[in-house]
Amino acid sequence: MRILATGLAAGLGLVLMAAAPAPKAPPSPQDILDAAPASAWKDIAADDLVVMTLADGNTVTYQLAAKFAPVHVANIRQLVRSGYFDGAVILRVQDGYVVQWGRPDEDKTEAKGIEKHPPAEYDFPGKGAGLVPLPWPDSYAKSAGAIDGWPAASDGKSAWLVHCYGMIGVARDVAPDTGDSTQLYTVIGQAPRHLDRNLAIVGRVIKGMEFLTARPRGTGDLGFYKTDAERVKIVSAKMVSDLPAADRPAFQVLDTHSGTFERWLHAKANRSGAFFVRPAGALDICNALTPVRKATQAQL
Amino acid sequence: MRILATGLAAGLGLVLMAAAPAPKAPPSPQDILDAAPASAWKDIAADDLVVMTLADGNTVTYQLAAKFAPVHVANIRQLVRSGYFDGAVILRVQDGYVVQWGRPDEDKTEAKGIEKHPPAEYDFPGKGAGLVPLPWPDSYAKSAGAIDGWPAASDGKSAWLVHCYGMIGVARDVAPDTGDSTQLYTVIGQAPRHLDRNLAIVGRVIKGMEFLTARPRGTGDLGFYKTDAERVKIVSAKMVSDLPAADRPAFQVLDTHSGTFERWLHAKANRSGAFFVRPAGALDICNALTPVRKATQAQL
Repeated sequence: MRILATGLAAGLGLVLMAAAPAPKAPPSPQDILDAAPASAWKDIAADDLVVMTLADGNTVTYQLAAKFAPVHVANIRQLVRSGYFDGAVILRVQDGYVVQWGRPDEDKTEAKGIEKHPPAEYDFPGKGAGLVPLPWPDSYAKSAGAIDGWPAASDGKSAWLVHCYGMIGVARDVAPDTGDSTQLYTVIGQAPRHLDRNLAIVGRVIKGMEFLTARPRGTGDLGFYKTDAERVKIVSAKMVSDLPAADRPAFQVLDTHSGTFERWLHAKANRSGAFFVRPAGALDICNALTPVRKATQAQL
Repeated sequence: MRILATGLAAGLGLVLMAAAPAPKAPPSPQDILDAAPASAWKDIAADDLVVMTLADGNTVTYQLAAKFAPVHVANIRQLVRSGYFDGAVILRVQDGYVVQWGRPDEDKTEAKGIEKHPPAEYDFPGKGAGLVPLPWPDSYAKSAGAIDGWPAASDGKSAWLVHCYGMIGVARDVAPDTGDSTQLYTVIGQAPRHLDRNLAIVGRVIKGMEFLTARPRGTGDLGFYKTDAERVKIVSAKMVSDLPAADRPAFQVLDTHSGTFERWLHAKANRSGAFFVRPAGALDICNALTPVRKATQAQL
């Protein structure tokens, strides 16, 4: 099997599969995660997790960035709990750009109990934000790295979450205060960094991304589906905190202040093992997304 | 329709759709392309174009990077003309990473008339390569930009093509000379820049990318399909230069030495119009891919 061993980049930790017998290599990024102490992993709060079930039975789980866009996230929790997304659809899949979901214009379902005109929660003060910067340059910002497990960038004065693959933002019209969280999108291609600080980032997909990305692309302008028949229905969206304790999926995110995170970053930037001729020696912010893992019972 | 107007990023040039009535804005990236003189567009040679027809009837057209990986590209032309890819399959779809095609291990079809052990055409001398560098920093290289319409980077001494979305590379085993072009992959997520200078880049998809990216992800290691039933067949691959003149699709690429390219880059880095609150003021190499267009008869 020609495995293009660098698929290992995806973090499957199968270096030896590509290189048997291989010279003893430094630990791979996955080796470093596997060896991390339990203390390097932080539980994700159940009230920051949403499980979306699609008509095909597949589920997509996303984490909310409550700390960074509190008003938009409060809207999402309210919309989920009021059932607004139960029966919503995937409206748009634009290749290499975004998947967008919500309710189509002709659907007049009222969004009850939300802030209709949230403030533009696009960035926040850089001072005290706790950015762990990558040691490599960013094309768009003075520095880029991670804040509490989220990809972020800063110009010194302000900091903001970055539109990397899988990040979730709030669609809006022209006026900045028109993004009420009733329509959300996630990034499915090269990070559209020009959206940073222009739309509110409210979360990221942590499981089931492939059930959004593998959809047929819409043939209308901007990848919108032209007919209702093309739209996949979202059967339900639920807050994990509202599920019976036994049914709650649990996830953990690597502590970005841990030594494990730093070692993982450098191993990812300097791939070793028999396959690599020349390690990159660097990593861009959207190739350095903080690892998330499913928590096993043992870890809970 | 909540259009997340920044879908315009994809170059559809529909800014006014998002902003009617809008204040008079500077030209959009698409406006600049639409206004470009014919002289700003260069024809892509028919012998550098391959049309791949999938079992579902969709076609994928890719351009060969003959100048940068001549031995690997000569192999591809020979494999196409000898019918090697007629009946090959999509072997692997790994979410956010690559789609890989060729023949599975159990298929012993001989690849006739190719160089079985091509040199590692991973980079080339930077001097005289004609890199048009972007004025913004790159996370991985001293400079990044375009060489004759291809995304490229340089460390000063050497230059190389970059693994951006849609770029095509040659899968290999551990030994660098095992990439004979019988299995190819294209990038479908955030640019895996760690692959740069570790695999040969031989082309890019210029039409039909969505028919590769929208496939179900493989559930085997590295996104390989576990069963033959999951693999979509490639009915045929043909050199456009071997098609009857009347049937040849024709494409043009923007001259990266033209003023249009420079204006387009800066417009893309500084989005204007009513939607944008804060232009990025920068562009990374994989968001600056040289525009390609279908040539109309009038242009030929």
